[in-house]
Amino acid sequence: MKIPVVENVLKVNDEIAAMNRKELCDAGVFTIDLMGAPGCGKTSLLEATLKHFADKLEIGVMVGDLTTVRDAQRMGRYAEQVIQINTGRGCHLDANQVRNAMSRMELNKLDILVIENVGNLICPVGFDLGQNVKVGMFSVTEGDDKAAKHPYIVHESGVLLLNKFDLFEHVTFNLDTFRADLKQLNNSVDLFEISVAENNLAQWFAWVEQNAHSTSQS
Amino acid sequence: MKIPVVENVLKVNDEIAAMNRKELCDAGVFTIDLMGAPGCGKTSLLEATLKHFADKLEIGVMVGDLTTVRDAQRMGRYAEQVIQINTGRGCHLDANQVRNAMSRMELNKLDILVIENVGNLICPVGFDLGQNVKVGMFSVTEGDDKAAKHPYIVHESGVLLLNKFDLFEHVTFNLDTFRADLKQLNNSVDLFEISVAENNLAQWFAWVEQNAHSTSQS
Repeated sequence: MKIPVVENVLKVNDEIAAMNRKELCDAGVFTIDLMGAPGCGKTSLLEATLKHFADKLEIGVMVGDLTTVRDAQRMGRYAEQVIQINTGRGCHLDANQVRNAMSRMELNKLDILVIENVGNLICPVGFDLGQNVKVGMFSVTEGDDKAAKHPYIVHESGVLLLNKFDLFEHVTFNLDTFRADLKQLNNSVDLFEISVAENNLAQWFAWVEQNAHSTSQS
Repeated sequence: MKIPVVENVLKVNDEIAAMNRKELCDAGVFTIDLMGAPGCGKTSLLEATLKHFADKLEIGVMVGDLTTVRDAQRMGRYAEQVIQINTGRGCHLDANQVRNAMSRMELNKLDILVIENVGNLICPVGFDLGQNVKVGMFSVTEGDDKAAKHPYIVHESGVLLLNKFDLFEHVTFNLDTFRADLKQLNNSVDLFEISVAENNLAQWFAWVEQNAHSTSQS
């Protein structure tokens, strides 16, 4: 009874995502769908990223939350084009919400678009938004079992971030276990071990810059 | 197109939840639906709770995860009746999954049943499982904005736990802001500020014990 409806929703979503992808690609925008649990540090990472690239790249942000405009306000201090998408009780963004937000942006001015998804390790994974790459974000305070317990986000991500290394010595986190789980689930994913709090973000910044240039040259 | 199906799913869920509630109540079991983000410390809290009440209360556990039986294995060391429910890509437990698991438990032996929901602050909130009370769990490492950004879990919870006070001095967390947001969203909710790592759980243990006795006397 339920499955055909769900399949239809996903089919429509995929069609809209394909339109988004074409439009973003034509505008030379490299688009990242950033996914992670509540409080893993997505917004703080984007604040640091916007600051770092302030004079180098034009970065736009869409940010999904159930309610409030707090995250957009935080990032609006550092970027010209920031749009808050409130999902109500919705647990993830979909391609149509992104499409509506795209219509309110000047895409041809952007090098990068980051879509900060709703804080949730599960539902955002299954919805294509039209991004170039999905980036999954964990933090060491969440425990070393989170990759194994959330395999789909590991499968679907091109890059994984493991944040809060500034707290590493204060928590119980077996890095070998985490890395071994990752390798088993997705041998080709890049893992960047970072600390937003300490601005230890060199790998991430290099990756962002490389992708911004690859898109603008194409 | 989609809404009637969703409403129907919720209606069926509520009917099954009502059956669960009656059966659990008749068996004298006080039932807790424990909800929180991935890595907030739900399983560690339950391990500590099972150890603390080992000689005093019979506590059963159902634990929901996408995949793996890691959490059930962790808790199975301390409790006789532990059931892992794997949801696949499902982002929350529903009343029927709980009902199926109930049929495999000896309810009349239990004082307390804790249902550890899938790690997710959003989707579990809307599904009644037949519990006496929903308990929402945050942690200070997630940031002080999480109550405001996730109002529905605050509305629906009878008790809220704020974990990881052992890390309080290492993170930026304005406790006054968090408490003020809570008060505005749900003035009657109890907030227990805890540290599972340091076994600072006296308020939680007292609350569990009180509820176990209230049910067995009724």
